Amino acid sequence: MNILFTSVGRRCELLKDFRNTLGDKLKIVVTDNSPYAPAPAFADVVYRVPLISDKEYIPKLLKICRREKIDAITTLIDPEISILAAHRSDFEAIGVEVLAPYKETADLCFDKYKMFKYLKTNNIPTVLTYGSFEDFKAGFDAGDIKFPVFVKPRTGSGSVGARKVESLELLEELTSRSPELIIQEFMDGKDMDADIYVDTVSHEPVAIFSKKKISTTIGGANKTISFKDEALFDFVTKALKIFRFNGPLDMDLFYKDGQYYLSEINPRFGGAYLHAYGAGVDFPSFIYKNVVEKKENKPVIGEYEEDVCMLMYDSVVIEKLSSLEGRMNEI
Amino acid sequence: MNILFTSVGRRCELLKDFRNTLGDKLKIVVTDNSPYAPAPAFADVVYRVPLISDKEYIPKLLKICRREKIDAITTLIDPEISILAAHRSDFEAIGVEVLAPYKETADLCFDKYKMFKYLKTNNIPTVLTYGSFEDFKAGFDAGDIKFPVFVKPRTGSGSVGARKVESLELLEELTSRSPELIIQEFMDGKDMDADIYVDTVSHEPVAIFSKKKISTTIGGANKTISFKDEALFDFVTKALKIFRFNGPLDMDLFYKDGQYYLSEINPRFGGAYLHAYGAGVDFPSFIYKNVVEKKENKPVIGEYEEDVCMLMYDSVVIEKLSSLEGRMNEI
Repeated sequence: MNILFTSVGRRCELLKDFRNTLGDKLKIVVTDNSPYAPAPAFADVVYRVPLISDKEYIPKLLKICRREKIDAITTLIDPEISILAAHRSDFEAIGVEVLAPYKETADLCFDKYKMFKYLKTNNIPTVLTYGSFEDFKAGFDAGDIKFPVFVKPRTGSGSVGARKVESLELLEELTSRSPELIIQEFMDGKDMDADIYVDTVSHEPVAIFSKKKISTTIGGANKTISFKDEALFDFVTKALKIFRFNGPLDMDLFYKDGQYYLSEINPRFGGAYLHAYGAGVDFPSFIYKNVVEKKENKPVIGEYEEDVCMLMYDSVVIEKLSSLEGRMNEI
Repeated sequence: MNILFTSVGRRCELLKDFRNTLGDKLKIVVTDNSPYAPAPAFADVVYRVPLISDKEYIPKLLKICRREKIDAITTLIDPEISILAAHRSDFEAIGVEVLAPYKETADLCFDKYKMFKYLKTNNIPTVLTYGSFEDFKAGFDAGDIKFPVFVKPRTGSGSVGARKVESLELLEELTSRSPELIIQEFMDGKDMDADIYVDTVSHEPVAIFSKKKISTTIGGANKTISFKDEALFDFVTKALKIFRFNGPLDMDLFYKDGQYYLSEINPRFGGAYLHAYGAGVDFPSFIYKNVVEKKENKPVIGEYEEDVCMLMYDSVVIEKLSSLEGRMNEI
């Protein structure tokens, strides 16, 4: 299998997991804009590409796919997901499976306020969200929401720019300074997430791996513990029916008073997917079955052990600048 | 060599570096308060200990040292450095080398305002610092300092609580709410640091590894590049003469208009020491020579290559909670 990871950045361990499962049956091709990305050290072929906003970006990815006979492409950063989704047919035309959601789903996942409205319409419990201070004020006056609240950028990634706000005055100041902020009910329930694989042949979820967050840092959880709950699997399976995913995704959830709430969805390999892999939930093997064998995977939802912990730590790539630069091919 | 790393936390790669250098000649003993620390996965023996503020803490460390025949002890967190330093004679009495500075130096490193005054007195260029808003206001009115300024906790670790402040009003508000903040000149020069080993036999610096920070995150640099400059080695060597270090330390520096400035010192293995090790500056071998062979090391200041990059990424330990807990010995 020849797989292309775009905007590969720091995702070294994910590449190692693919190698661990697929060994010699795998060629890992990666792109990045910077020679200071560590993950290329674990790839077979590396291309330096322009920024994802550049008009030459997609043509260059297509060129890489042809040259390297790529079977599947996936991105590791949020702002690129809709771009890949928008060009799905271009990739499919040259035999490349795009491991990203279909366009309308990709756009929903990127815009947290649009997502909130869509979930409401479809009766999926979610976190009460307002798109502007005016809307919030109306809800606040009507007694629908109280302080503290949580603000975050409408289209942000991870927890960048997210904060708890305790007063109306501060909320008004923050939202007038940063109109891109959305305002959410503060959830004091348990914070958890699920790594999910939606089969690209059957279009059904074949794996759901749920974990509680023990500790989080900017950018995500750094200590997690696995658990199983049929109610969660049912909740996730039902929620997935209103979307069109294709491949890996990560769904953030809250649990409060006996009810799950969908918080947000990152439709790509989550930063803590490493946990699922380490617990035996092997997405690389699912992708191989889908794109090389062209077969659907047998569902293995909940087939893992509880109380498996993931504890993150800093590892390093150490190399001469000349060799980092020398590794990057131009196209 | 039997070495004890206390408060070992996430420092997995540091333990791997020790193992890589010393192989079978090494027993790694570690302590932590939590079973969720990942580094114990790379140790030979693990003890669960109370918080460092507990009155039983030091007696328990001494008991571990006797039981495991420890040759050297070092801590990986800042608040513990002065505690180990204060008990140096207790450890030395049972043959344990304390890889931490002597008490008066440890206290200076922990208190950034005390450090500023000490450096001023000794004519070591440093970052202009005020210990209170009143002192700052006097300096500001006299034209000694202007905005923006930088505030950080007087005794904090890493960059937690540090921020740039643009106005007198905000500064007054922040410092009245958090009187532990110190106020520093904002340095727009280049940000760099040096990993240093002070020989425990000769009491001289034997290695200085300097690196520029390419990118930083909360808690330190995550991408760095090595460089060499005789002026930096001279600056560091001169600065070290007014302190009593013992073993590894990390010195943060600024470079501006042809002059180095000492910013702060973390007198322990820095989080990015991994870079120095990867470039061949082998502190584990220095420690072995000092504490097992009881010999001094030959200075190797500047003996490494320039333009070696360190790029951090997230790695993981994945294990059942029961085995994390089962590994921890009580004492």
